[in-house]
Amino acid sequence: MAAKFRIRKLVVIGVGLIGGSFALALKKARAVGHVVGVGRTRRNLAVARRRGIIDETALDAAAAVRDADFVFLGTPVGQMADVMARIAAALPPRAVITDGGSTKQDVIAHARAAFGPRFSQFVPSHPIAGTEHSGAAAAFAELYRERKVILTPLPETSRAALRTVRAAWSQCGARLISLDAREHDEILAAVSHLPHVVAFALVTALARRQNGPRLFGYSGGGLRDTVRIAGSSPEMWRDICIANRDALLAALDGYTAELGAARAAIERGDGNALQSMFERARSARARWLVSKGK
Amino acid sequence: MAAKFRIRKLVVIGVGLIGGSFALALKKARAVGHVVGVGRTRRNLAVARRRGIIDETALDAAAAVRDADFVFLGTPVGQMADVMARIAAALPPRAVITDGGSTKQDVIAHARAAFGPRFSQFVPSHPIAGTEHSGAAAAFAELYRERKVILTPLPETSRAALRTVRAAWSQCGARLISLDAREHDEILAAVSHLPHVVAFALVTALARRQNGPRLFGYSGGGLRDTVRIAGSSPEMWRDICIANRDALLAALDGYTAELGAARAAIERGDGNALQSMFERARSARARWLVSKGK
Repeated sequence: MAAKFRIRKLVVIGVGLIGGSFALALKKARAVGHVVGVGRTRRNLAVARRRGIIDETALDAAAAVRDADFVFLGTPVGQMADVMARIAAALPPRAVITDGGSTKQDVIAHARAAFGPRFSQFVPSHPIAGTEHSGAAAAFAELYRERKVILTPLPETSRAALRTVRAAWSQCGARLISLDAREHDEILAAVSHLPHVVAFALVTALARRQNGPRLFGYSGGGLRDTVRIAGSSPEMWRDICIANRDALLAALDGYTAELGAARAAIERGDGNALQSMFERARSARARWLVSKGK
Repeated sequence: MAAKFRIRKLVVIGVGLIGGSFALALKKARAVGHVVGVGRTRRNLAVARRRGIIDETALDAAAAVRDADFVFLGTPVGQMADVMARIAAALPPRAVITDGGSTKQDVIAHARAAFGPRFSQFVPSHPIAGTEHSGAAAAFAELYRERKVILTPLPETSRAALRTVRAAWSQCGARLISLDAREHDEILAAVSHLPHVVAFALVTALARRQNGPRLFGYSGGGLRDTVRIAGSSPEMWRDICIANRDALLAALDGYTAELGAARAAIERGDGNALQSMFERARSARARWLVSKGK
């Protein structure tokens, strides 16, 4: 690694909120020379081009990566296997590959199957950042500033590739954490995938009511915040739910049991049980906020 | 009603976020002369006094209301029956009473039972405003600015009392809506009470996990917003859940069915079902935000 970290040619496959913000952050840090964007729709790539996120668009991913030194996979996790298969043979030996997928065990399994001898150049990563908006139009350079990025390197992962990926995320302003991929998927099922399913289900349940369209007019900031993430990309979350099925089902079942206990307490009018549950929740949340320094 | 609306003596029973903010807003609007605060704990009343929310503290609610012209009931709904019984005999004939309770059918039933001939002076109200903080320390004069306040007057309600209560809330900057009490309780069960139970249950489910204390460290803004309202007053929400039991159970069951459908789709890896559910949620939320002008 040079004294000043710099990527000569970055290829971003999937130029959405995550991939687009990665490119913008590196550009802002003057840590990248040329950025090529690859994507499914010309319209989104045109937005990315117009916004200066990418310098060039490409429809053929394999051709684009042939002389890349850094490849960022920013597609929904359900497309990773296909994208990896398309670029594998064209990857130059020293190119470093990372991703922004919200699940890691499945992405790693796809990379292992697709990349063969290049698998050691792949560094799985997951930025804990995002908004309820998606697409190149939603990307911004500061998305990763002071946000955590979880890396889940494997024994096979090249140390040089790992250093390069760490350096790139650091240039984006992120704080790096390493986790085992399985632990990552279990933790994220609980703190991210479950809350998204909860929010999506809450909105559909309300919308399904006879008075659905009128309901939101009577709501306050509580509902607004609780369902903010129900604005997230349906495709991305469909893929995450399927990719992380087992851990998510376990988290869902723990939550459903808790909800069932609350329901039973409400039905029998058990104020003590409700109060102690709500107090436990309030204390846990307060401790969490303290631990996050908020 | 005089040209300029003004309360000579306001008694606030339960000087928390809701009652305290009501007093502060009226003071700021110079719409109140003297404010007496009644409460269970001397400590909270001392905070209210120090912050200028109230001018005087009283421990005996009946004595305090004897020469009041406006009484605001700001206690959790579970205490309303008791508070009403204590003040009923002392209420002067022309005093107007309102409340800030989140449920209306139960509060109305208690008022009808307690107030006798004074029942027509009681105007049930529910401000759709609040934060996850509670107590006099959390009160602020702008809480009700541009927020909705739902009134659920009855055929017996005095028109003069209704005018006075409307004028008071208007001085707080609120926008007034009228609803039937039963409709109010059904709507609020869906858009407010259910989301609170969802948030409380989500936090307790996460906190209960073996890695509970570490979990929040890996979370992002999604979880933070989804569970913000799990910081709300456990006592207040215990009372609401019990007071609005039937409507809340119905809302909970609709939500649980939706969650069960999501679970089944995840389990069988049904991407189409998940995507269409998430898309329905995203569209409904988007329409809601448009209808609220956000």
